[in-house]
Amino acid sequence: MTEALPLFEQGRHLLSVSQFNRQTLRDLFVLADAVNPIAQRQAVCTVLDGAMLGSLFFEPSTRTRLSFESAFLRLGGEVTTTTGFTFSSMAKGESIADTARVVSGYSDVLVVRHPDAGSVAQFAAHSVVPVVNAGDGAGEHPSQALLDVYTLDKELAARGRGIDGVRLAILGDLKFGRTVHSLIKLMSLHADLTFSLFSPPGLELPSEIGQYAAQRGHRVEVADNVVDAIRGADAIYATRVQRERMTTEQAQANARGDLLNWAILAEADNLDTIIMHPLPRDSRPDAYDLSPDVDDLPGLAIFHQTDNGLNVRMAIFLTALGVSTEAVTLTTKQRPWKATLRD
Amino acid sequence: MTEALPLFEQGRHLLSVSQFNRQTLRDLFVLADAVNPIAQRQAVCTVLDGAMLGSLFFEPSTRTRLSFESAFLRLGGEVTTTTGFTFSSMAKGESIADTARVVSGYSDVLVVRHPDAGSVAQFAAHSVVPVVNAGDGAGEHPSQALLDVYTLDKELAARGRGIDGVRLAILGDLKFGRTVHSLIKLMSLHADLTFSLFSPPGLELPSEIGQYAAQRGHRVEVADNVVDAIRGADAIYATRVQRERMTTEQAQANARGDLLNWAILAEADNLDTIIMHPLPRDSRPDAYDLSPDVDDLPGLAIFHQTDNGLNVRMAIFLTALGVSTEAVTLTTKQRPWKATLRD
Amino acid sequence: MTEALPLFEQGRHLLSVSQFNRQTLRDLFVLADAVNPIAQRQAVCTVLDGAMLGSLFFEPSTRTRLSFESAFLRLGGEVTTTTGFTFSSMAKGESIADTARVVSGYSDVLVVRHPDAGSVAQFAAHSVVPVVNAGDGAGEHPSQALLDVYTLDKELAARGRGIDGVRLAILGDLKFGRTVHSLIKLMSLHADLTFSLFSPPGLELPSEIGQYAAQRGHRVEVADNVVDAIRGADAIYATRVQRERMTTEQAQANARGDLLNWAILAEADNLDTIIMHPLPRDSRPDAYDLSPDVDDLPGLAIFHQTDNGLNVRMAIFLTALGVSTEAVTLTTKQRPWKATLRD
Repeated sequence: MTEALPLFEQGRHLLSVSQFNRQTLRDLFVLADAVNPIAQRQAVCTVLDGAMLGSLFFEPSTRTRLSFESAFLRLGGEVTTTTGFTFSSMAKGESIADTARVVSGYSDVLVVRHPDAGSVAQFAAHSVVPVVNAGDGAGEHPSQALLDVYTLDKELAARGRGIDGVRLAILGDLKFGRTVHSLIKLMSLHADLTFSLFSPPGLELPSEIGQYAAQRGHRVEVADNVVDAIRGADAIYATRVQRERMTTEQAQANARGDLLNWAILAEADNLDTIIMHPLPRDSRPDAYDLSPDVDDLPGLAIFHQTDNGLNVRMAIFLTALGVSTEAVTLTTKQRPWKATLRD
Repeated sequence: MTEALPLFEQGRHLLSVSQFNRQTLRDLFVLADAVNPIAQRQAVCTVLDGAMLGSLFFEPSTRTRLSFESAFLRLGGEVTTTTGFTFSSMAKGESIADTARVVSGYSDVLVVRHPDAGSVAQFAAHSVVPVVNAGDGAGEHPSQALLDVYTLDKELAARGRGIDGVRLAILGDLKFGRTVHSLIKLMSLHADLTFSLFSPPGLELPSEIGQYAAQRGHRVEVADNVVDAIRGADAIYATRVQRERMTTEQAQANARGDLLNWAILAEADNLDTIIMHPLPRDSRPDAYDLSPDVDDLPGLAIFHQTDNGLNVRMAIFLTALGVSTEAVTLTTKQRPWKATLRD
Repeated sequence: MTEALPLFEQGRHLLSVSQFNRQTLRDLFVLADAVNPIAQRQAVCTVLDGAMLGSLFFEPSTRTRLSFESAFLRLGGEVTTTTGFTFSSMAKGESIADTARVVSGYSDVLVVRHPDAGSVAQFAAHSVVPVVNAGDGAGEHPSQALLDVYTLDKELAARGRGIDGVRLAILGDLKFGRTVHSLIKLMSLHADLTFSLFSPPGLELPSEIGQYAAQRGHRVEVADNVVDAIRGADAIYATRVQRERMTTEQAQANARGDLLNWAILAEADNLDTIIMHPLPRDSRPDAYDLSPDVDDLPGLAIFHQTDNGLNVRMAIFLTALGVSTEAVTLTTKQRPWKATLRD
């Protein structure tokens, strides 16, 4: 299905990271930069005055929903929200086609999250307005991958370099982690990358994803342990592991403590690397995730990722609706007041 | 109760279709036409800037809620939403009178949906702002009947005629279908109509509804089968049948396949008639509802109904709040951008 | 914890009534008066154009949520809402620190309700924007106490006097009623008060609250029955009693009928006193709460309390965000229309 998807541009659905090439990805990032004063709450924008976002979450994902809704509201638009596992009319046997046609008639753009892979594309096929995929189960979650690459690009730029030639360590559940698959695909638009992977037994990266990167000229290395994986990495992308997904008792027994923490970074002599995570991270003891003891390290970028999500989602909306940067500029003004939290 | 309700105009609750006469119905439709550029997303309106809609759904009805909320937001207002079977304070023994008085103090107008007939009127009796009934169980759902008649009027106008003299077939559950009762009452404000009815055994139209129409000079005909009911009809209004409501096993056994589909329309030689349905329709196999195989017919109006719901609900809000067409015109401007979904 | 909290002013969280002194309480009331035309829906304000409220209700409290959201929307801001017992990412082991950091990045101010005492303060400690406590279980609910004292001040002013020297009867559950504790603390900023208390056995006011008032020069009197408690009172504050909280069967057996009603007020010769209640009140028979038979009395202020909640919550937002009265005035205009409900 995704092979045939057109480039993401005005009047198009955003269903997959496969809808970008290097140039259109860069264009989206330029737009995300341009709206930064709005995302940072220094300026107020009314360009989407009168525009309506239909936010449809057929499964809960509070932070993703809030990020999309805030992005749209910050551009001056309005939002209607539907959450919950069932859509009342669907429970009465309504087809996804009817639901999509009816609900899309109320809005200018839809954000749809659904537990079943492919269902957002099915929804989009019957919508009369552009649809943004906010995650469809084991399928795609393109805005997450976009904000991840955008953040990595910004963090690297702050260090005086770009994504080309980067060594990126990716840790955790590489088999079921939809986020990781989209990230590797989107990263592969760049040049000369090294992906250094570590996963618990049974959670290895599917071979087709590795081949996808290799065919585009990148190196894919698999490490035996976390320290080897992260040694020399310019950035680390850690993900949550659900222990019940590990296939052997031995793997489950070994996945104790932290997946990544201060001591492991120190052992790899890489305490100043860029540290990313799609969040939420599991902070319960023995959760085998990214430890909060890294939170004071200089390269911690996990909250930059969520903050940057506003920029990227604004850029997605502006692109889908065909709003120019000029129109944004003309409708943006400084705030008459500035709230700052005191210490 | 409904006998004593005043005409629906500025500062009034909208509780029942009985609050219209032919003139005020026409006035509402003129207003619904006037806001069409806003409903069609070509123009932006700010007339309700600073106005607040309290959207209270004590039972779920996602599409009705989204339609009302979108209509209000498109006029420039703001919305607070409450959904769910229980209102937290009501669970603590709060009376409907207290709830209505308190919540109405937060808003300029309320839309209320409740599972119990009469409860919205009870709510309205204690509200300090106008209340719009969005469905009260077996009671009324006036905005649905209004958008149905508005749509029929538009579809007929496109064919060069009006509602007077029309032959309307009504199919399905005519006993429990609240929508049908309100529709017949509102249609009866017009002249010289023929209602051609078909329902499965046990789901016949209550005699008082038929008498209501007959007393106003209309013909009510009951057909033995769907083909007879729809032959020669200018329009067909099909509704969903819940099989468990049929009173005999024989009726349930006969209600197989589709209530209405392409083949049945062809057999009645009426493939270009106007086809309406309140939605949702049950598209599961053997659901005994309107088949999706009619979706490409030229007279299909079911999505025009939902689209027109925005116009009608805007007109309801403007009427309840006493906003003039002039005020709407003065606060409406063209959109600086236009999103169109590409094929 | 609350001892160390700073005064509530620009850029500060509002977590407790202990963050006020007499002057800053008065300043807040002046601001609440200033926004009255907006709260009363005569004027429209856009001062918070582009500002975003994150409304996070980890436990349901519909009226409190609607009041906060309406207040913010009336000032021109936008709202994103999250309700429900679980935050989807918290269910995956996310710490309150991570949730607060991420979600606060989407908003300019947060309103947080949580069932656990102290959790809102914990949330605030990790937020990058001001947090307003909308109730944290057995902890605090400062906006309720603020609107209570504001209402009492307005009601007394209409009778030509102020709070100093007032005799206030407080009835009901004085042990578990968080509202009462905050009310007494905030009232104690004034001079020369008499608190006249009545509670069923086992639900007496904690001694530290009484001592708090006494140390500030006020009289705390405990009555044996309701009539004695309310005789001569300038105002009565009644609260709901949960019968299951009474510690003896005898107490439960005696707590029948109404806690306060017309006949009891008549017996105390105090039918024109000010009557307050935090709502919701339990109007079911034998609920041992404030009877609706007092609703026509001239001093009934229970709905003034909820209406005034808009003013007070607007003033809270303006203070937290550091918006001046001048900025409000400059961005406020008369409404071009006025909806009034007809009788």
